Amino acid sequence: MKRIGIFTSGGDAPGMNACIRAAVRTALANGLEVYGIYRGYLGMIEGDIVPLQSSDVSNIIQRGGTILKTARSDEFRTPEGRSKAAENLKKFGIEGLVCIGGDGSFKGASVLYEEHGIKTIGAPGTIDNDLYGTDSTIGYDTAVNTVVEAVDKLRDTAASHNRLFIVEVMGRDAGFIALRSGIACGAEAILVPETPTYIDGLIQKLREGWSRKKHSSIVIVAEGDESGGAYQVADAVKKNFDKYDVRVTILGHIQRGGSPSAYDRVLASEMGYAAVKGLISGKYNVMVGRQGREIVYVPFEKAIKHNKELNKYLLEIAETLSR
Amino acid sequence: MKRIGIFTSGGDAPGMNACIRAAVRTALANGLEVYGIYRGYLGMIEGDIVPLQSSDVSNIIQRGGTILKTARSDEFRTPEGRSKAAENLKKFGIEGLVCIGGDGSFKGASVLYEEHGIKTIGAPGTIDNDLYGTDSTIGYDTAVNTVVEAVDKLRDTAASHNRLFIVEVMGRDAGFIALRSGIACGAEAILVPETPTYIDGLIQKLREGWSRKKHSSIVIVAEGDESGGAYQVADAVKKNFDKYDVRVTILGHIQRGGSPSAYDRVLASEMGYAAVKGLISGKYNVMVGRQGREIVYVPFEKAIKHNKELNKYLLEIAETLSR
Amino acid sequence: MKRIGIFTSGGDAPGMNACIRAAVRTALANGLEVYGIYRGYLGMIEGDIVPLQSSDVSNIIQRGGTILKTARSDEFRTPEGRSKAAENLKKFGIEGLVCIGGDGSFKGASVLYEEHGIKTIGAPGTIDNDLYGTDSTIGYDTAVNTVVEAVDKLRDTAASHNRLFIVEVMGRDAGFIALRSGIACGAEAILVPETPTYIDGLIQKLREGWSRKKHSSIVIVAEGDESGGAYQVADAVKKNFDKYDVRVTILGHIQRGGSPSAYDRVLASEMGYAAVKGLISGKYNVMVGRQGREIVYVPFEKAIKHNKELNKYLLEIAETLSR
Amino acid sequence: MKRIGIFTSGGDAPGMNACIRAAVRTALANGLEVYGIYRGYLGMIEGDIVPLQSSDVSNIIQRGGTILKTARSDEFRTPEGRSKAAENLKKFGIEGLVCIGGDGSFKGASVLYEEHGIKTIGAPGTIDNDLYGTDSTIGYDTAVNTVVEAVDKLRDTAASHNRLFIVEVMGRDAGFIALRSGIACGAEAILVPETPTYIDGLIQKLREGWSRKKHSSIVIVAEGDESGGAYQVADAVKKNFDKYDVRVTILGHIQRGGSPSAYDRVLASEMGYAAVKGLISGKYNVMVGRQGREIVYVPFEKAIKHNKELNKYLLEIAETLSR
Repeated sequence: MKRIGIFTSGGDAPGMNACIRAAVRTALANGLEVYGIYRGYLGMIEGDIVPLQSSDVSNIIQRGGTILKTARSDEFRTPEGRSKAAENLKKFGIEGLVCIGGDGSFKGASVLYEEHGIKTIGAPGTIDNDLYGTDSTIGYDTAVNTVVEAVDKLRDTAASHNRLFIVEVMGRDAGFIALRSGIACGAEAILVPETPTYIDGLIQKLREGWSRKKHSSIVIVAEGDESGGAYQVADAVKKNFDKYDVRVTILGHIQRGGSPSAYDRVLASEMGYAAVKGLISGKYNVMVGRQGREIVYVPFEKAIKHNKELNKYLLEIAETLSR
Repeated sequence: MKRIGIFTSGGDAPGMNACIRAAVRTALANGLEVYGIYRGYLGMIEGDIVPLQSSDVSNIIQRGGTILKTARSDEFRTPEGRSKAAENLKKFGIEGLVCIGGDGSFKGASVLYEEHGIKTIGAPGTIDNDLYGTDSTIGYDTAVNTVVEAVDKLRDTAASHNRLFIVEVMGRDAGFIALRSGIACGAEAILVPETPTYIDGLIQKLREGWSRKKHSSIVIVAEGDESGGAYQVADAVKKNFDKYDVRVTILGHIQRGGSPSAYDRVLASEMGYAAVKGLISGKYNVMVGRQGREIVYVPFEKAIKHNKELNKYLLEIAETLSR
Repeated sequence: MKRIGIFTSGGDAPGMNACIRAAVRTALANGLEVYGIYRGYLGMIEGDIVPLQSSDVSNIIQRGGTILKTARSDEFRTPEGRSKAAENLKKFGIEGLVCIGGDGSFKGASVLYEEHGIKTIGAPGTIDNDLYGTDSTIGYDTAVNTVVEAVDKLRDTAASHNRLFIVEVMGRDAGFIALRSGIACGAEAILVPETPTYIDGLIQKLREGWSRKKHSSIVIVAEGDESGGAYQVADAVKKNFDKYDVRVTILGHIQRGGSPSAYDRVLASEMGYAAVKGLISGKYNVMVGRQGREIVYVPFEKAIKHNKELNKYLLEIAETLSR
Repeated sequence: MKRIGIFTSGGDAPGMNACIRAAVRTALANGLEVYGIYRGYLGMIEGDIVPLQSSDVSNIIQRGGTILKTARSDEFRTPEGRSKAAENLKKFGIEGLVCIGGDGSFKGASVLYEEHGIKTIGAPGTIDNDLYGTDSTIGYDTAVNTVVEAVDKLRDTAASHNRLFIVEVMGRDAGFIALRSGIACGAEAILVPETPTYIDGLIQKLREGWSRKKHSSIVIVAEGDESGGAYQVADAVKKNFDKYDVRVTILGHIQRGGSPSAYDRVLASEMGYAAVKGLISGKYNVMVGRQGREIVYVPFEKAIKHNKELNKYLLEIAETLSR
């Protein structure tokens, strides 16, 4: 292998730039040439591809977002689109790919291999942490810290006013952000799609807290929780328990941005390094993962099955500590 | 005067604790006794009043919210409620008050004086900066910084995706937060209630920017803008200009919280100091203000008239720099 | 076991409060009474011991430092001191202890057991991460983030002036903080006590970088590096390579403070929970550790041997990415 | 005037980029061409001069440092050096200059005018706030916030250990940073070059505080204080009062970096705008200043005289509130 390409795909996540930097420099240090493909599969189809040197990735490790940008491509979902993409890669002499993204991106890479033999190795770049086979994805730690900092600010206000804040965080299918941030900000309750949400139980808990003079509370709700989200929870609480001044906050897109945390910068560096090392040693159709202290390679089909489980121990701790 | 009371009222604002600390210590240094009244006028009616020592306000200068809490009181809007409040003050021997709050709080203090002769001096504590007679209110600088930090995060994401973010910030009647934060984060447009909002012009501007390869943009909207808010603006843009992936973010209550900025801590300290000094020298029914480099005392009736003007120079700068 | 004590000892670390909160609430949820012992072994000797309720640990999860304070005690190093401590524990009916601290604290606990049969379980609270048997200690992640934020600021200045900054970080015996923060801020070199430091090699690297137009650089030095620290490295560089304007920054005690990161709050919560659960199930003279995804119990004598190794994979990555 | 140049000079300061952006866009909006001169007077001599478009200053408002870099130039101190600089400006057709810097930079600009008739307008870019004629300089508010955040972290640790921290902040000739940051972090004492420092009085104050159970303290020292700095103060305290565990922290260069605060971004935008407007209307050899709510133009010779006074009111407040 002499020349590889690198691209980011799907929603952006803090740490993607650190991963790009690591992959580029590892490739160069191992005698490979590297091309950056802009805007994911869209740029692959349009031939938006440029060579990258070490200095092109200087001073980006601390930046949120992705310098290679990311975009959706409907055309890539068609065989014709993928043929164009493959032709462009051949035209540029690109023999292997590093894809930083989530499940959709890895599915695309699998199909590209089946149809055109393009070998791709993935690095999990998504704040949602919903990929199987890795303890943590690039961007997850930063997103949790962003939530925690925001909720710390809300708590100032909650404590000054005897208020209940219902805070909705990202996670359409998974409660990872909600669970860790809920523990970290001492939330009184954490509502996630993976466990049944009993509004009656929540109200009972708030009532008991109130009677123990706990006059401000935070409830964290994952956007994919079966309750329907923060507004629905707020309505239900207001109808049944009127002591609190109930307020809703939807944290939204700020969760995707910001300078990556130290944890995410190190993880992204490890993963960019391991991705290129894996590609060199012949691996493809696999995602780099971190399991405990080990860096592992997880087949794409396993990684994207959405069966990663929430840590039950943390659920139990959350329950105990919120009393 | 031998004994004064201090309370916070209305929405909480970062820096209120710094102001409480300054007022308490200035009072003690001048031989006065100080009582803290919890939960504003509500605590005044309920007699939730305790003596404060210097050590009670140690280590609070950096905390958001207010240690004295704040609450709404419907009862205080009645003559009976105000009589109870006045009786409690007399019972505790409180001869003057420092009120940290906004226009509603100062109106209440005026009535209390008219009916019961209680002398109050105000310190402007509100993130909205909508009080006449002071360049800046306690909490305003922190709120603007909170908005700017959030928008910096959004810009990472916007730049990675060619997105337009419409960001709604606080300001029901006034565009102060929107204007300063809009300039500080380099927003492409700033929509405030004080000036007419022309959606056509906005779309034209976005169109021109796009043609100049400006593929990510931020628009800041004050919640009180006559457009109706961020969702309305987003809908109008989407209908007329489909290049952008348009997203809405409502920043919400995080704008009220957080550790106060250095600016707000110093301002709040100056104002708490000046409030007590003013009370000692016989001033009342006035709000402490900062005009340029001077600390001034502004009659309540002037301060609360909601006729403070946006800085036209800043509007002009915003217009020029967003090109 | 009916009543336990909890204390913090040694240098403070962000997350200690989160661990106290978790231990207190877990104990109460399991029917135990909990006493807080102030100022570590010093307070144990002086009988500075108070009962703790759930509300005593409200709203502390986000605070740096330790509400139970910490202190050195020379008296505890004597048999007489330890006898006094043991007597006080008996007087208060305390049957087990949770000790949040580092190696010195755990040694003290071991001796207390040997001499007086007091059973202690430890939680590793130290920013240095130098305890064997746990991937991470409470406070380490926050300290690394603090370093990274500081170095990000220095990089602004370095890049504006063509400067070389030599930054000294904490770590008298170990390079854990230096290594992770060095990778996370993209340092050009990382000097740690665990590996030999070749100043000649460093200068050669800076020279090569300069010739490739890399005109600003950051070098991270652990305070315990055999080079002698940042000033010594700076002197050596200045003598041999005069292109750079070389500056030294000693980050110092800010590394111990600050609101804990989300990671540290969750880790501390897990550890406080596990410590009490361990005590209940009969464990003692062990430290709670985290290994990969597992919570483990590590005998004190193993934990404190100072033979924890730096992650070699990270050293290799650091070397590759700094080119 | 058809074409102007812009450069940054002296120590870098957060907000310089915001000022560059404002000046460039204001110039373009007024039909001028703009050239960026890299590395201050050094680049002027070397002809390191490039045209700037609006997009060249996109997405820099939030960045610390200066994209135009800054450097010292001994050659510019010679008539020959200045002749080269003037020739280069003529060669590029540059008719006026915007200089963002401090007193030394403005002196240079004055000489350049005397000798070669080059007209320069200045914007005060320095964290030290030591220029007469403006309430605030670009970077000052950010530097004060950086100090305050660092000291907040130290206070966590101080409070946990009964420690006294002596913190040295920037300010060789002036105590502006020390005074505002000292008030904002509630320092027990603030030592500045503008007022006599009585170590005896300081020790007396610490002693009194200790007897009132104030067991942790922060003292802020400006580096230019006549005591000699933080280490000297620490030694003197240790010799005379041994209750505290005394620690020294030198904050150093982190004070120059970081993303600018909202205040500095707005101020820098105003000043960049006003500088170009001034140049167009025929002003030169003047510095843009902010006095209260007004933007003013201050002759260079007045601005650089180092006779700006500390706000006495703030000194008095600091004294009162630290009790």
